[in-house]
Amino acid sequence: MKPETYLHDLGGEIEAELSRLLPPAAGPDRMLAEAMRYATLGGGKRLRPALFCAALTALGCDYRPWLPWAAALEMIHCYSLIHDDLPAMDDDAWRRGRPSCHAAYGEAIAILAGDALLSLAAGILTRPLPQAEPHKQLAAAAEILADALQMVRGQAEEFAPPAGGGDLAWLERVYAGKTAALFRAAVLGAALLAGAGQEQKQALADYAAALGLAFQITDDILDYCIPAEETGGAVTGDKLDYVALAGMSAAEAAAGDAVAAAEQALSGFGGAASLLLHFPRMILQRRS
Amino acid sequence: MKPETYLHDLGGEIEAELSRLLPPAAGPDRMLAEAMRYATLGGGKRLRPALFCAALTALGCDYRPWLPWAAALEMIHCYSLIHDDLPAMDDDAWRRGRPSCHAAYGEAIAILAGDALLSLAAGILTRPLPQAEPHKQLAAAAEILADALQMVRGQAEEFAPPAGGGDLAWLERVYAGKTAALFRAAVLGAALLAGAGQEQKQALADYAAALGLAFQITDDILDYCIPAEETGGAVTGDKLDYVALAGMSAAEAAAGDAVAAAEQALSGFGGAASLLLHFPRMILQRRS
Repeated sequence: MKPETYLHDLGGEIEAELSRLLPPAAGPDRMLAEAMRYATLGGGKRLRPALFCAALTALGCDYRPWLPWAAALEMIHCYSLIHDDLPAMDDDAWRRGRPSCHAAYGEAIAILAGDALLSLAAGILTRPLPQAEPHKQLAAAAEILADALQMVRGQAEEFAPPAGGGDLAWLERVYAGKTAALFRAAVLGAALLAGAGQEQKQALADYAAALGLAFQITDDILDYCIPAEETGGAVTGDKLDYVALAGMSAAEAAAGDAVAAAEQALSGFGGAASLLLHFPRMILQRRS
Repeated sequence: MKPETYLHDLGGEIEAELSRLLPPAAGPDRMLAEAMRYATLGGGKRLRPALFCAALTALGCDYRPWLPWAAALEMIHCYSLIHDDLPAMDDDAWRRGRPSCHAAYGEAIAILAGDALLSLAAGILTRPLPQAEPHKQLAAAAEILADALQMVRGQAEEFAPPAGGGDLAWLERVYAGKTAALFRAAVLGAALLAGAGQEQKQALADYAAALGLAFQITDDILDYCIPAEETGGAVTGDKLDYVALAGMSAAEAAAGDAVAAAEQALSGFGGAASLLLHFPRMILQRRS
């Protein structure tokens, strides 16, 4: 099956699993449940759950019994987006082409919806599953939650650049936290559930680090490619991004190097990694 | 040992454990770490960790190897206070006699400090510990995280009372969520780690539900007893609390009933529950 078809079908499975696990929009806390569903369902690239499932596949495991974990990873991502969009943070009134969660439900419910999604996700990771060996499940859950904490630390660093402004080393650390950490959670969580060896875990960690950097630099590059009439010409502004700090050609080169490094990290997996290899290629396609 | 002495000493142990587990206020994300420490250390009644340790003691277990879990329960409580105090929520600039977290560190860092505390706490609950049986640890962690989600649902219900205003049944449901849920997490988490039987678990759940209600109604009663010169006469206002909905004497009676129910729930434990019995008595003392 072509990776595109596989990932498309997987997207449908993840959507269904999210809908099943999220509280129904009914009952006395209906508004919270609605906000959680609004911010999670019906959009998004589902990158983190797809990475998780692709890593399980690369390690010879069936991902389907682990779909609740794939959904939990997406919930962690979505909670971080809700809180990121808040007026006190990035102050974004739009997300995925519609009003952001706080714009639709108010700030209080948006804060609580983020808190609830993280709590629900952590609860899913500890819920006993018939196929799981408890000690492997604990190790995988601990990895994912440690990476979720790293993500917050990366976001906090972005809000408090060092005196004199951030440099490229600072920005790469921020990206390693705010983006690569959850990519790492996805592939290392899978590796720990699958009982992968040290070499495989290291390869997957290297892959996630490179993929996260490639993804984030590409995002920065694309920000400069949006026609001015769509952005009002104000997209870049005072943002400390990769292009602003390194220049466009260095950013292009760094993204290319990171994509190559992600592919290189998987060389030991052979054909089993074909799905994982699709993600760096998707990033290259976004740029062309 | 007198319960007061025991709880005082325990408070010192929990403070030390929190300080050990929280990130040091150093390095590139120093501000986040500082905010997490500020909101967690040096104050608070440490009720939830004390309940957890007292429940382990009632079940014949040494609580000391589980101090990281006691600290994690306090982190979950403190994250909820940080987010509760935000301008979009209760808008409290003061907490425990000093500026609240967002007043001291800004809203963005306060939101992230709450997120980081919840992530860290969930991570601690999944971190393998030498004394733990993995399947019991998973069950206990799942209980605590499910209760942490209940807490958020209770808070959300408080922000969205039913059309026509909340009644007493609504308020009791809110209190069962926002306060009793974490009390329940503390005692049922302990019960699951200790491998307690169904009868003991039910007794502890009943105890937590009654204690949470008693605690919250007493809080409402005390709000009305603060001299007007300390509050500017504006403490009650439009708050939908137990006294406003039921009247002072009904509130007094309900708090007394709940304290009695909490004590009654422990009748099967005999002398082992002496520490747990101290908590309802503390609540009665707060009122006198």
